[in-house]
Amino acid sequence: MFLLKPRWSDLDAYNHVNNVTWLEYLQEARVDMLFVHAPDRGAEGLAEGVLVVRAEIDYKRAMVFRQAPYPIEMWVAKVGGASFTVAYEIADDDGVGNRLVYGRASTVLAPVDMASGRPRRLTPVESEVLQRFVE
Amino acid sequence: MFLLKPRWSDLDAYNHVNNVTWLEYLQEARVDMLFVHAPDRGAEGLAEGVLVVRAEIDYKRAMVFRQAPYPIEMWVAKVGGASFTVAYEIADDDGVGNRLVYGRASTVLAPVDMASGRPRRLTPVESEVLQRFVE
Amino acid sequence: MFLLKPRWSDLDAYNHVNNVTWLEYLQEARVDMLFVHAPDRGAEGLAEGVLVVRAEIDYKRAMVFRQAPYPIEMWVAKVGGASFTVAYEIADDDGVGNRLVYGRASTVLAPVDMASGRPRRLTPVESEVLQRFVE
Amino acid sequence: MFLLKPRWSDLDAYNHVNNVTWLEYLQEARVDMLFVHAPDRGAEGLAEGVLVVRAEIDYKRAMVFRQAPYPIEMWVAKVGGASFTVAYEIADDDGVGNRLVYGRASTVLAPVDMASGRPRRLTPVESEVLQRFVE
Repeated sequence: MFLLKPRWSDLDAYNHVNNVTWLEYLQEARVDMLFVHAPDRGAEGLAEGVLVVRAEIDYKRAMVFRQAPYPIEMWVAKVGGASFTVAYEIADDDGVGNRLVYGRASTVLAPVDMASGRPRRLTPVESEVLQRFVE
Repeated sequence: MFLLKPRWSDLDAYNHVNNVTWLEYLQEARVDMLFVHAPDRGAEGLAEGVLVVRAEIDYKRAMVFRQAPYPIEMWVAKVGGASFTVAYEIADDDGVGNRLVYGRASTVLAPVDMASGRPRRLTPVESEVLQRFVE
Repeated sequence: MFLLKPRWSDLDAYNHVNNVTWLEYLQEARVDMLFVHAPDRGAEGLAEGVLVVRAEIDYKRAMVFRQAPYPIEMWVAKVGGASFTVAYEIADDDGVGNRLVYGRASTVLAPVDMASGRPRRLTPVESEVLQRFVE
Repeated sequence: MFLLKPRWSDLDAYNHVNNVTWLEYLQEARVDMLFVHAPDRGAEGLAEGVLVVRAEIDYKRAMVFRQAPYPIEMWVAKVGGASFTVAYEIADDDGVGNRLVYGRASTVLAPVDMASGRPRRLTPVESEVLQRFVE
């Protein structure tokens, strides 16, 4: 789980976290997973370069500027030969036992060879590391 | 068609327009349609408040910082009772007659009553105006 | 002191926190002081609306994407009749007792009457609260 | 003169172009001068890497979201041995002959050697090219 602290500058003219910024929140969560946690486990290549090839987001409830961070749960939904899918849920608790879901999303990601800039297949080690994030 | 001039600040550490910024580009194109063109035709309410309830983007080709703007084509793909879907294609010409598609996207939008902040149904005039953008 | 966690999206094409984003960092620190801490002490009006009338920043050392937040120290440098100046220093420790200064900045701020949008004078209570932040 | 088209996403919760985004506008204007116009005249190195070492902005009048771009005038205010100062004025006409100044700013810039990341002196050709932008 990644904790994302909203910034005042994330607000748009409607005083809500702008719909564009949601995708930034997902990016920060994913970077944390790929740059920080995956390399610890032997998949350094994923930190070097991954392209987003598809994104989808369902917005359920507005996020606002607040002191408490928004929790983002994240898991690998699918591992393919040359791509993998990360799913996300932004949700917290209303303090009396109910789960408040702000939104759900998924992104399809493809590793790239940084020298050539071209997509490449996942290595066996990368696939194995990603499998550990499958829920 | 909306012409979006990239900013140098749209680039990320990979020197490409960041995947998050694509959603900003779509937002700018949509705002132009809803704030500028739709009100001319009698649908002022759509300029006042529309929530994004779903977004999906397929990224096909990297956008870079360049002088020429990126053309964004946009049309209404579906008009429902309390929501409508805008589809987008970012594409230009390679100069020798081939169409280069950077990406395709769609967003589901819901009008909101600004006083209460609650979703509302499209008015007959709004539906009619949106129908004119259906391709 | 405000702790600012960098986001990967703060990086520009040079892989550094972009010079523009520094001003966003200062804004987040200031919002924390004015929205969160000042209202606790009786200066709610400062949370409602303050305009930036001048900003200056000296950039000393690049900030990068990292897990540890950047500490921002902040104090009121001057309280006038209709404006006040907030000074900032972004600095941390290199782990062996040396202070690393990333930058120093100041912003002149003017309270505005939110109904009219016009600048107004500081109230006696606001001046008193701000004086407590003078170092 | 550089023409900056505001984006809806430049607005903050007060419905104005956020003070941070002003610095982004200056960056876009400067990039246009250094990346696009200076290289035409023999100073390619300035396009490769220039650090902002100081920025100051005086905010005079709010910018809003509008169709017409904001004109940014820009000139080199000073050329030193290892740095130069660019000054900016954002201003337009009110339609009846009065000049509306939104703000004035200046940034001190230092060329860097991209291989080492270290500041370097301006070359004679660069100094000469920059002198042509002195007003």
